[in-house]
Amino acid sequence: MTIAVFHESYRPLLEARLPAHIEPRWFSSRDELYALAPQAEIGWFDGLTLPDMWGSAHVAKKIRWLNTNGAGVENFPLAQLRELGAVMTNGAGLTGPAIAEFVVLGVLNFAKGFADIVRAHDRREWLTSTPPADELTGSRALVLGAGGIGAETGKRLAALGVEVTYLRRNPGPGDLGPDGWRARLGEFDWVVVTVPATAETNGMIGAAELAAMKSSAVILNVSRGAVIDQDALVDALREKRIRGAFLDVTSPEPLPADHPLWGFDNCLITMHLSGRSTTPRAPVAAERFLENLARFERGEPLLNQVDLAAGY
Amino acid sequence: MTIAVFHESYRPLLEARLPAHIEPRWFSSRDELYALAPQAEIGWFDGLTLPDMWGSAHVAKKIRWLNTNGAGVENFPLAQLRELGAVMTNGAGLTGPAIAEFVVLGVLNFAKGFADIVRAHDRREWLTSTPPADELTGSRALVLGAGGIGAETGKRLAALGVEVTYLRRNPGPGDLGPDGWRARLGEFDWVVVTVPATAETNGMIGAAELAAMKSSAVILNVSRGAVIDQDALVDALREKRIRGAFLDVTSPEPLPADHPLWGFDNCLITMHLSGRSTTPRAPVAAERFLENLARFERGEPLLNQVDLAAGY
Repeated sequence: MTIAVFHESYRPLLEARLPAHIEPRWFSSRDELYALAPQAEIGWFDGLTLPDMWGSAHVAKKIRWLNTNGAGVENFPLAQLRELGAVMTNGAGLTGPAIAEFVVLGVLNFAKGFADIVRAHDRREWLTSTPPADELTGSRALVLGAGGIGAETGKRLAALGVEVTYLRRNPGPGDLGPDGWRARLGEFDWVVVTVPATAETNGMIGAAELAAMKSSAVILNVSRGAVIDQDALVDALREKRIRGAFLDVTSPEPLPADHPLWGFDNCLITMHLSGRSTTPRAPVAAERFLENLARFERGEPLLNQVDLAAGY
Repeated sequence: MTIAVFHESYRPLLEARLPAHIEPRWFSSRDELYALAPQAEIGWFDGLTLPDMWGSAHVAKKIRWLNTNGAGVENFPLAQLRELGAVMTNGAGLTGPAIAEFVVLGVLNFAKGFADIVRAHDRREWLTSTPPADELTGSRALVLGAGGIGAETGKRLAALGVEVTYLRRNPGPGDLGPDGWRARLGEFDWVVVTVPATAETNGMIGAAELAAMKSSAVILNVSRGAVIDQDALVDALREKRIRGAFLDVTSPEPLPADHPLWGFDNCLITMHLSGRSTTPRAPVAAERFLENLARFERGEPLLNQVDLAAGY
């Protein structure tokens, strides 16, 4: 028997479909989760809070496969999982469409000066001096990272007429790679940050990268705040060296109310809301889990398997 | 030889690409325009003032095809053009991409509760109770009118995963027609108004149509304010019988500051800004002219041909 631990909410989606030799244990409270996690050979600890999920993973010393719905895995005990010989899968693609739509909204917001239109509405003012009104067709986007979120974002921007280039660790034809992208930053109107948070990506957008961007370019971050050197961004926005920033993520979160980023009219902070969705994800997540369970049992590579050394 | 009259500014875009039997004449002043217009068999009189364009069209007694960049044609000599057996083409679709992008922005605004995110940003508040966060994939849009603006809008919504249905005067497969659309209104999440302003479309969205919409549906209007019965809309928004309205156009414009539409949190007014664009349109207009010239010479229907009797 293989002990597998899940949140109670997944029971209707999973229970009848688990193989006989899988022994499911269901948690619905923090105490139950922390009691069950040390026994789990297969663990899917989503369902309560993020800190509970991360904390329980630290005490899961028998784990062979850890699954999560989230994309970023930087708060999981990746080194411990490696030592245990475990595999980990994440839910990068699950949030991809919602986040990609949010990036499109961010791009259109800046193209059309939409936030200022909302503000004018609230003043009941019929604008006569008009906000910017750029068309997307023919503009150019650099998408940093081509995982589930980056690919979904690029697909949508391309459908709106944007010429999309990806930065990939292993670049294919037309892509930029780790060596070449900085020299090309000045070509893009939209720089979309979707890379995972790792030691390598920490601060990858700093003063030099911001200086290399077009003065008319907008940076959009749906990754993690730490990927951008936030002090350098504050300087760039204050001096209007770039056109704007659309920040779903900041350092820290929540961003303190006295932080200068709130005060720039060329910056919009969206409070890590990009991945939220009222579209139910549990059925999709459960299907994906069951597909991966079949692969796990056949000893095959899993879908969305995390590289525990690379951290994503 | 066919004499064709253009503003000088189009010369770099057209001259090298005209067939040999087209004899272009270029004007750069009012006197030149009025001297050339009576000889024109093909005329494109944009480039000076609107009254000069309209006035020169009145003296163009040899005209067989008159082209204009504008959308509204009510000041051209439509009856005279009919008597001459001429055709006329307008530039309605030139604003299509800009307006279509604006509709996408409106849809995403309501899907993601974006205006409320902007307002929270302005309060420096990190939202914890989150705004709506719907995904577009699988939602359904009804686009009223499938002209340049409607088609460009539908194309973009479809690329974002929205299932798009058009209301057309002459419905094709999958379209709704003048008789059937009202009974189907309750199927759609997004109702996008792009029809031209005519006697027939005046008030076509009234109390009955608003009542037939889903309570979760949003209406978006980029046509003319009069297409919607605005008093009925006020009632529907006040009683939250629909989810919201995204109004680029109102009756009248500007909308008076004391009008109730400004005060609803489920309504956003965007001040007839949807069609503005900083993207130069002349190259697109020239490409379209050349495409239409080829069609004209083959005796085929032209793109964006005006119905001289209907007036649009």
